[in-house]
Amino acid sequence: MNKVILLHRRPAGKPVLNDFKFTSESIPAPQIGEILLKTLYVSVDPYLRGRMNDSKSYIPAFELDKPIQSGIIAEVVDSNNAGFQKGEFVLGNLAWKEFQISDGKGLSKIEADDSELTPHLGILGMTGLTAYLGLTEIGIPKPGETLVVSGAAGAVGSVVGQIGKILGCKVVGITGSDEKVELLKSKFKFDNAINYKKNHDLLKAIQLACPKGVDIYFDNVGGVISDAVLANINKHARLPVCGAISLYNETSMPIGPRIQPIILTKSATMRGFIVGDFSEKFPAANKQLATWLKQGKLTYSETIIYGFRNIPQAFINLFDGKNEGKMIVKV
Amino acid sequence: MNKVILLHRRPAGKPVLNDFKFTSESIPAPQIGEILLKTLYVSVDPYLRGRMNDSKSYIPAFELDKPIQSGIIAEVVDSNNAGFQKGEFVLGNLAWKEFQISDGKGLSKIEADDSELTPHLGILGMTGLTAYLGLTEIGIPKPGETLVVSGAAGAVGSVVGQIGKILGCKVVGITGSDEKVELLKSKFKFDNAINYKKNHDLLKAIQLACPKGVDIYFDNVGGVISDAVLANINKHARLPVCGAISLYNETSMPIGPRIQPIILTKSATMRGFIVGDFSEKFPAANKQLATWLKQGKLTYSETIIYGFRNIPQAFINLFDGKNEGKMIVKV
Repeated sequence: MNKVILLHRRPAGKPVLNDFKFTSESIPAPQIGEILLKTLYVSVDPYLRGRMNDSKSYIPAFELDKPIQSGIIAEVVDSNNAGFQKGEFVLGNLAWKEFQISDGKGLSKIEADDSELTPHLGILGMTGLTAYLGLTEIGIPKPGETLVVSGAAGAVGSVVGQIGKILGCKVVGITGSDEKVELLKSKFKFDNAINYKKNHDLLKAIQLACPKGVDIYFDNVGGVISDAVLANINKHARLPVCGAISLYNETSMPIGPRIQPIILTKSATMRGFIVGDFSEKFPAANKQLATWLKQGKLTYSETIIYGFRNIPQAFINLFDGKNEGKMIVKV
Repeated sequence: MNKVILLHRRPAGKPVLNDFKFTSESIPAPQIGEILLKTLYVSVDPYLRGRMNDSKSYIPAFELDKPIQSGIIAEVVDSNNAGFQKGEFVLGNLAWKEFQISDGKGLSKIEADDSELTPHLGILGMTGLTAYLGLTEIGIPKPGETLVVSGAAGAVGSVVGQIGKILGCKVVGITGSDEKVELLKSKFKFDNAINYKKNHDLLKAIQLACPKGVDIYFDNVGGVISDAVLANINKHARLPVCGAISLYNETSMPIGPRIQPIILTKSATMRGFIVGDFSEKFPAANKQLATWLKQGKLTYSETIIYGFRNIPQAFINLFDGKNEGKMIVKV
């Protein structure tokens, strides 16, 4: 039988296991033009939380009692489509099912060994593109500038910081544990990192870490961490808004200091984005990321959880910061 | 004697007359290279409120017991500087004095009759440039898009709306009285206007006035009006932040709904600016504004208050929305 994970009910606040439902169906047979895919690796990402709400977002809400979808690497195990051969690996936005049928649309093939697949969900996939394009297209880093990244040890944040260093910035990360602070400084070569859970005066901690002020703030988290960074921005600062994980589970309207006055007095630019806003730049960006990775200028972390049944828990763990880098479930 | 207005103390909240002090000094004589100026028209503007605080802003704070400065049109009444002739009119950032000495630096000459001077403080001056450059450089209007302007009957707002119409947008203004609503629709040709004081569900009122959503929000006011507009923005909206008059007199940190989630989900761009950010574009912008004015495509309102001694009250009146268009004191 073929296991499937459905959205059972819309989470109220932080998701819990009972928001998901396991079911099973027979393994389908591919008709003409179709292929049968076996799920190998499942990407779980904070943005999926938004799709679990009923409200309008930048992508449609998941339907109740329908399978959840995310970035998945799968193997072609049967093919009635001339474009795909058995044994090929593909990447796509697929359902949380062990096996599924596809007509091949929206899938991209991955030319890699089994051991080199997962980067295509991360640094060579949406994560890397999000980091690279958000930083270069909105952050517009210049050598000598100070870049602050929140969610710095996450899949996007850790890549943003490294690209900032490659491009000549001073890079300061904000993260949620002393272990991650060490990781950012040792593995990812950040100039400095701040554990926001230990710094009760975060505004001051950022001021100390950024004596010349903050020129670029790559925001993955929102909330009080972002308040503290905004209080330290320089004239003409650029503020790519990539995520707001600290707010995704709020059940009422989040309230905080109004930011328009500082945006105004600093002539700052705040811009939200999803990676698809820059889709015409994907090929060049992917090439640059692959080059840096090959040159050893970029590295990455993955947190791999094993077992199809653990997909919901892996997703929930994102909101406790239990991942280091990209969170992936190996089925 | 020569009357002078000093900043007597920093306003706590909304400015009051006792924050200002009148004093007098003898009328100085111009030395070699200097000119004596007689103040004719004084511009009072919301942004001056920020300079009355001690805190850092985009321009330095006014000093206590020193004259306040703003945009002023003056007549050269005596000259020891070959570059200036008696009887010429000049525009500059000058002190609130009836007479003052200048070395001519930073002054621009106005070639106009006495009856045509005041537009150079408004639509042909900083006000017009602010409207034009904020809208075109940040708002980037496209024909058919919906533009919402707050502070719409003010000096900047009324020009922004008219330029929006010239460039093919649907234009909706937000203002604070039924008289101003009528003015926006009749004189300034806005498609629609909303009296925020009469609409308790402002979010809904904006939704009704903008059935296709808001593509550009030119923000002069901040606060709850801006909250209601932001709740109606479209994907890829542009949000020039020109002012925050509703917040200038706050004595504690203004609090409101966090806006990063909507900036994120709408891939919106919010950018603060002062007109000086675009100084290299002043000549072309001034030329365009003068052309439109001559062609009758632009019009403007002025609220003229008479008498040097009424400058502080004219300034205070800005925060009660007592001006229609540009607030100017004729000395």
